[in-house]
Amino acid sequence: MGAYTLGLDYGTNSVRAVVVSCEDGRTAGTHVLDYPSGERGVIVDAADPHLARQNPADYVEGLRVATLGALAEAEGADAGFSRERVIGIGVDTTGSTPIPVDAACRPLAFDPKWRQHPAAHAWLWKDHTAAEEAAAITRAAEQHAPEYLAPIGGTYSSEWFWSKVWHCLNVAPDVFEAAASWVELADFVPAVLAGVKDPRNVFRCVCAAGHKAMYSRAWGGLPSAAFLARLDPRLAGLRDRLFDEAHPPHLSAGGLSPGWAETLGLRAGIPIAMGGFDAHYGAVGAGVAPGTLVKIIGTSTCDITVAPAGEPIGNVPGICGIVDGSVMTGYYGIEAGQSAVGDLLHWWTDSVCGGDDTLHARLSDEAAGLRPGESGLLALDWNNGNRTVLVDPRLTGLILGQTLGTGRAEVYRALIESTAFGARAIVERLADCGVPIDRIVCCGGIAAKNGLFMQIYADVLGRPMLLAGSPQTPALGAAISAAVAAGAEAGGYASFEEAQGRMTSLRDERFDPDPGAEAVYDELYAMYRELHDCFGGVPGAEGDFPTMMKRLLALRERVAADGAAGSAMSAGEAAR
Amino acid sequence: MGAYTLGLDYGTNSVRAVVVSCEDGRTAGTHVLDYPSGERGVIVDAADPHLARQNPADYVEGLRVATLGALAEAEGADAGFSRERVIGIGVDTTGSTPIPVDAACRPLAFDPKWRQHPAAHAWLWKDHTAAEEAAAITRAAEQHAPEYLAPIGGTYSSEWFWSKVWHCLNVAPDVFEAAASWVELADFVPAVLAGVKDPRNVFRCVCAAGHKAMYSRAWGGLPSAAFLARLDPRLAGLRDRLFDEAHPPHLSAGGLSPGWAETLGLRAGIPIAMGGFDAHYGAVGAGVAPGTLVKIIGTSTCDITVAPAGEPIGNVPGICGIVDGSVMTGYYGIEAGQSAVGDLLHWWTDSVCGGDDTLHARLSDEAAGLRPGESGLLALDWNNGNRTVLVDPRLTGLILGQTLGTGRAEVYRALIESTAFGARAIVERLADCGVPIDRIVCCGGIAAKNGLFMQIYADVLGRPMLLAGSPQTPALGAAISAAVAAGAEAGGYASFEEAQGRMTSLRDERFDPDPGAEAVYDELYAMYRELHDCFGGVPGAEGDFPTMMKRLLALRERVAADGAAGSAMSAGEAAR
Repeated sequence: MGAYTLGLDYGTNSVRAVVVSCEDGRTAGTHVLDYPSGERGVIVDAADPHLARQNPADYVEGLRVATLGALAEAEGADAGFSRERVIGIGVDTTGSTPIPVDAACRPLAFDPKWRQHPAAHAWLWKDHTAAEEAAAITRAAEQHAPEYLAPIGGTYSSEWFWSKVWHCLNVAPDVFEAAASWVELADFVPAVLAGVKDPRNVFRCVCAAGHKAMYSRAWGGLPSAAFLARLDPRLAGLRDRLFDEAHPPHLSAGGLSPGWAETLGLRAGIPIAMGGFDAHYGAVGAGVAPGTLVKIIGTSTCDITVAPAGEPIGNVPGICGIVDGSVMTGYYGIEAGQSAVGDLLHWWTDSVCGGDDTLHARLSDEAAGLRPGESGLLALDWNNGNRTVLVDPRLTGLILGQTLGTGRAEVYRALIESTAFGARAIVERLADCGVPIDRIVCCGGIAAKNGLFMQIYADVLGRPMLLAGSPQTPALGAAISAAVAAGAEAGGYASFEEAQGRMTSLRDERFDPDPGAEAVYDELYAMYRELHDCFGGVPGAEGDFPTMMKRLLALRERVAADGAAGSAMSAGEAAR
Repeated sequence: MGAYTLGLDYGTNSVRAVVVSCEDGRTAGTHVLDYPSGERGVIVDAADPHLARQNPADYVEGLRVATLGALAEAEGADAGFSRERVIGIGVDTTGSTPIPVDAACRPLAFDPKWRQHPAAHAWLWKDHTAAEEAAAITRAAEQHAPEYLAPIGGTYSSEWFWSKVWHCLNVAPDVFEAAASWVELADFVPAVLAGVKDPRNVFRCVCAAGHKAMYSRAWGGLPSAAFLARLDPRLAGLRDRLFDEAHPPHLSAGGLSPGWAETLGLRAGIPIAMGGFDAHYGAVGAGVAPGTLVKIIGTSTCDITVAPAGEPIGNVPGICGIVDGSVMTGYYGIEAGQSAVGDLLHWWTDSVCGGDDTLHARLSDEAAGLRPGESGLLALDWNNGNRTVLVDPRLTGLILGQTLGTGRAEVYRALIESTAFGARAIVERLADCGVPIDRIVCCGGIAAKNGLFMQIYADVLGRPMLLAGSPQTPALGAAISAAVAAGAEAGGYASFEEAQGRMTSLRDERFDPDPGAEAVYDELYAMYRELHDCFGGVPGAEGDFPTMMKRLLALRERVAADGAAGSAMSAGEAAR
């Protein structure tokens, strides 16, 4: 009788636990808990749309409820399952989602003194309050430590570890001072399960450290104290309370603590795998390998591939991150992404057309009746900036070619096409830098539901679009990491490759490029690149447009500021 | 007791008759008849969206019904009115709307033999079947007679006289052969009223001849037989059956025939003024004068101004037409226009947002709450090409600057702004060529109804936007032309200027520019010009974008042709 592992997937709004068979990767049981705090799990601030925090108590409660639910379901549904057969637990989470903790590794937010302070909670990945700090870090690194920026695409993000910690220092120095350390959610959950009571003993994963905290063994771990001191001397002081070494994903972060073993009814001491980000373990669960790109397509898209760590690869400018061991041990994990994909379609159907989900289906049906090039439209997919390859959040959307006869379904299709062109730009950039892609596996809601979308991607990218067999690839990838951490003798596997060979699959459905459509899209893509390079400011592109979107944003901000000043003045005058 | 004149306004869907007091221009009676034939008066062809014809019988029946209705209303409403006091009749129409006629000046469509043939009916201004002929005429004139193009903006249109007549020759040579002559609607209606029985005796107006048929006294009237023979020898043969001389608008086209006098209960022999186009007589009714631009704002916009005919003015490249005497005798009539204004807003609210007229009001209210520059959006108003100043129907729309937060009202406002920027480009082009504008009078539905629209125009153009007093300026202008044709002794006026001084007015409401808004719009207009010049192909503008919209249109057409060929092939295969 086979072994099972547990995969825990911490998303933005909920946590999912999945019990997976090590034999063939099938799901034996699953359970989801929506985080109880905030708005759909997110603590927001009406006065600041950039703020997004989470209550760490939701993580711990979710761990208990989701796991117990999944185990109970497995017991009911799978005759071969029993709790003793669970040989390990893996965890994937959002990130960078750092949590300030005390000396006992408890989140500060657990302390009644800090419970009401948003800075003492988890800083969710999509918190954008630290934009100024991010820009200052990029400038400092450009000047003093350009090597820090090379593996992360050349620009440090407001979503990442140091921006957030520094912003906390700037706006809530009391919280900063009270924190003994900061722990990424991806490391926090394994530490909880392993019963770690001191932040210095938390096993930190390469995935979070390398992609978000400028960690590399090449420069001895985290950024130097000298560099951090340039930002703020107190940040340099924090460095010693963080970590020197991060660990690859085949290792164990510890054994299941007796307390949690009792709570969950599992064997104490079974290995807890190193944590990792959802996209990275999602790629594992989708079968990522050298030459295979996994696209996780949702509101935005995250692209993950790997390259053998032994072989030198060129810098890939504009790629979000290239980190040794961040996806699977022995490989560079390479991450790219597009800031708005599903969100772009939602913008069109909901905000512009005023429709609902049924309109998506209707527009998709209508758009499927159009041929490539038939609408005469071309768009840039930058309504939320460009993450890869331009790494510029201050870019905006563009739609071109409309006539009085242009309908909403034509624009809908042009927007899908624009995201496909953006996807092609990423694949071409990877190939240019020695990371050729010959196989693309998609997962995420859009991949599973929107056939038109997938066919357009196949035609634009000129490659078959394959679909991951599991609807829950992050949890499956986490479960795979647990099987690797447990090892072959315990009923798991000796390596990620072996585990993937047995535990991952593809759906039968696939989308192959149509040669006629491909040829038309080659022409359209060439025009997309003209617009992309010119409005995106690629050096060597002609014209004065590189600055146009930024000039419009600057004008917009000035007008908003003038308006605020005007209102304030009016209020002042009214008071007189 | 005062005199009255009748103004007849032939629009696209209906004809309106207005009885006007010569004393102060007030309306004594009015009546509208919707044309009974076709779809809202337009004969269309499901197989060819470019075809738009009208039944000439509707014109004659409309003449009778609308005039009798207006006279009856005047009798009921105005105690001072009686039919004997009507001293003249003026006519304005759409154009170029040429009608093939027989040797008795009867429309061919009146003949049962031709009644079902669309080519034998009136070729409505918006018939676009003659695109190829228009392009060929432009090419031939560029090569052999560039002087023909100078006064009409450099490009001959598919909407104009020779394109349509030539297209008839190409697609319906039997109709072409059967036509003794072709008469513009603006000349046809006065000829009917005057009882003209031979097309050689029809008084042709400078307005239609000069703006649409390449007529100028400078080269002896219509284009030379040699030039026409280059297009087709049979066109050269038609030339002799047309006319040598066209006439300015202060003249009479004849006296009211006894038959029509009896039908209408008016005095036989009262002068019928020279016909003219609706926009031109509309400008007269709105008070056009040197330095005053009249904007007739509707689905599209037509701009009319005048300049003293004695003074040399530069060529105004890209302006639709500069014709001596086309608006008022003694002045160059200068015409410009924008291809989509109301249509652009309708496209957004109806085709994209899926709304109706109430949505216009809602979006307008919301958009009024935005400050200039606040949306961060910038658009090109080219969904229907650019009539002035680029004279290029193969340009398309562009919207830039959208984010995921961009709402439909923001785009609505950006589209209004884009048309205002287009309007400013026209005013600047006029000034560059020695036709400075210091006063702008607006008429048309949008001007009367949409205050946000008018305020944006005032702010973008940096000039007060005045509103014409009459809601029916074309009919009023036609009535003014009748008062001038009748002359002062009959109770009319000796000149257009005198008549305008008494018979036209402005509304009290006006829109003055706001200096703050003006400054922001100056910045946005500069960016609009960058996009405009680059994507519009203005010489000297940087980049490779001048061809982009055309490349997309060409691709679109190729795809459509391939699709048609593919379908045909499938049909053929199915037949085997």
